[in-house]
Amino acid sequence: MINVLFMAPQKSWAAYKTELPAAIAEVGVTAHVSPDIPDEEVDYIVYGPKDTGTDFTAYPRLKAVLGLWAGVESIVGNETLTVPLARMVDPGLANGMVEWVTGHVLRHHLGMDAHIVNPDHLWAPSPPPLARNRRVTILGLGELGTACGTALARLGFDVTGWSRTPRSVPDLRCLAGPSELETAIDGAEILVLLLPLTPETENTLDAPRLARLSPGAVVLNPGRGALVDDTALLAALESGQVGHATLDTFRTEPLPADHPYWQNDQVTVTPHIASATRPDTASVVIAENLRRAIDGAPLLHLVDRSRGY
Amino acid sequence: MINVLFMAPQKSWAAYKTELPAAIAEVGVTAHVSPDIPDEEVDYIVYGPKDTGTDFTAYPRLKAVLGLWAGVESIVGNETLTVPLARMVDPGLANGMVEWVTGHVLRHHLGMDAHIVNPDHLWAPSPPPLARNRRVTILGLGELGTACGTALARLGFDVTGWSRTPRSVPDLRCLAGPSELETAIDGAEILVLLLPLTPETENTLDAPRLARLSPGAVVLNPGRGALVDDTALLAALESGQVGHATLDTFRTEPLPADHPYWQNDQVTVTPHIASATRPDTASVVIAENLRRAIDGAPLLHLVDRSRGY
Repeated sequence: MINVLFMAPQKSWAAYKTELPAAIAEVGVTAHVSPDIPDEEVDYIVYGPKDTGTDFTAYPRLKAVLGLWAGVESIVGNETLTVPLARMVDPGLANGMVEWVTGHVLRHHLGMDAHIVNPDHLWAPSPPPLARNRRVTILGLGELGTACGTALARLGFDVTGWSRTPRSVPDLRCLAGPSELETAIDGAEILVLLLPLTPETENTLDAPRLARLSPGAVVLNPGRGALVDDTALLAALESGQVGHATLDTFRTEPLPADHPYWQNDQVTVTPHIASATRPDTASVVIAENLRRAIDGAPLLHLVDRSRGY
Repeated sequence: MINVLFMAPQKSWAAYKTELPAAIAEVGVTAHVSPDIPDEEVDYIVYGPKDTGTDFTAYPRLKAVLGLWAGVESIVGNETLTVPLARMVDPGLANGMVEWVTGHVLRHHLGMDAHIVNPDHLWAPSPPPLARNRRVTILGLGELGTACGTALARLGFDVTGWSRTPRSVPDLRCLAGPSELETAIDGAEILVLLLPLTPETENTLDAPRLARLSPGAVVLNPGRGALVDDTALLAALESGQVGHATLDTFRTEPLPADHPYWQNDQVTVTPHIASATRPDTASVVIAENLRRAIDGAPLLHLVDRSRGY
């Protein structure tokens, strides 16, 4: 019998306690899955907390940690973790991200807010430009950035994608490496942040780069809060260089009640819903990785701790 | 020399006076294009007004009328018109419609309004279902309905399409004919109206059909205002059977200042921008049809006046 410790907030267990055991049974693995297993009997950990203080040396039998989240910054630097770590690449998560990004890109492209909130009942027919005349840049061409870029290109948007290492994605102008980051941002009308959070990517969107956007540009951050220099973004909103920011991720979540983003009419806060892992699709990924670990096969979505993701 | 009368509001001429002659020259036709040509010298009419009273018998040399709009209900019943009539099928128009429909479907699917207007700064992370669990029905599978249905299916939505005569569109559940209209509407969570307006389709969305939608459903009408029984829709909004309506077309436009739609928080009015014809792409279509007419070739997008579109 394999013991799988479900280490995540109580409400996550409520969401997974049916789906996850069922998915594991489905791949032919006999396992005991529970949030409550004695430390010395734990074989695998399904990992979902947001804090960084877990001491993995408490689990002498531990063979692998299977993350519930795409982002692993809360665990990747944990020196007590010496077994393989897999992050979540949930097909449902990619779908959800594509829906959020496509929806908010279209919202800003179409100027929807002026119709949703129109107290003066203004009838002002001025059709927006077509998507092909709208420059969208996506920073980050991992699983999520690639899926979003592809969906936007299919709708006709003029999409540029940037990644740390060179990628090639059909219908996107693909740029790569530090030397092309500024070029990717130059003149973008809608900028989407989908980089992983690493020491290198923190504050990627700083004042000099904000100044390179098209005046009045829109910033979408469904990636990680710390990718943005918040002070610089607020200043760019104030000056009009950025027309609107729609943010799904923040340095502190929930976003504190006194945070200036809440008070700013040019900022839309969404409560970290773009990249929500769905129990049904995520359970299938965890189950498959558990089967691989038991069979000695390579894990899917293994984290390279030297790169940080 | 061919004389092409540009019969449309003054502001349309401002938009077309450069693009249209250029597009006509591009296809090798020598023509004089103007809003001001003596009646007896008019060979072709590019037609864009919204009124219905044009007397086409005033133009003895008239050979064809090339419409600037997708909808032809203001002209199709005009008995003074005996020459071929083509409607506009503008690739830019289809793109614009796909952008409007996809954007507003995603807006409602994601529950964006609660984040765009959030005076209490509520942080309530409850991710929406994935698109594949959202039932969208499109009434009308012409050029525009097909393009919208395809775009939504690519994003994963569960799309049903209905048309008067049977169509087959990949990835859509296609229903057809009067006997399947109710089935198409049954349980739809988002209903999109893209039917042509004919005596048969007027008030398609009436009280009995509204009652068949999923409770709290969303109605999008970028098609024609008169497809909706306005009184029935207002009652369905009042009862909660319809949660929200986003309407781009109305029986009277601009929507009169005292219309109840303006006062209703559950209604979003957009000012007939979904299907705006773009001068650059539409001019190419007009030019191509002019060349065909002169060459005696069949016109593109010829209106069948017995069907009314």
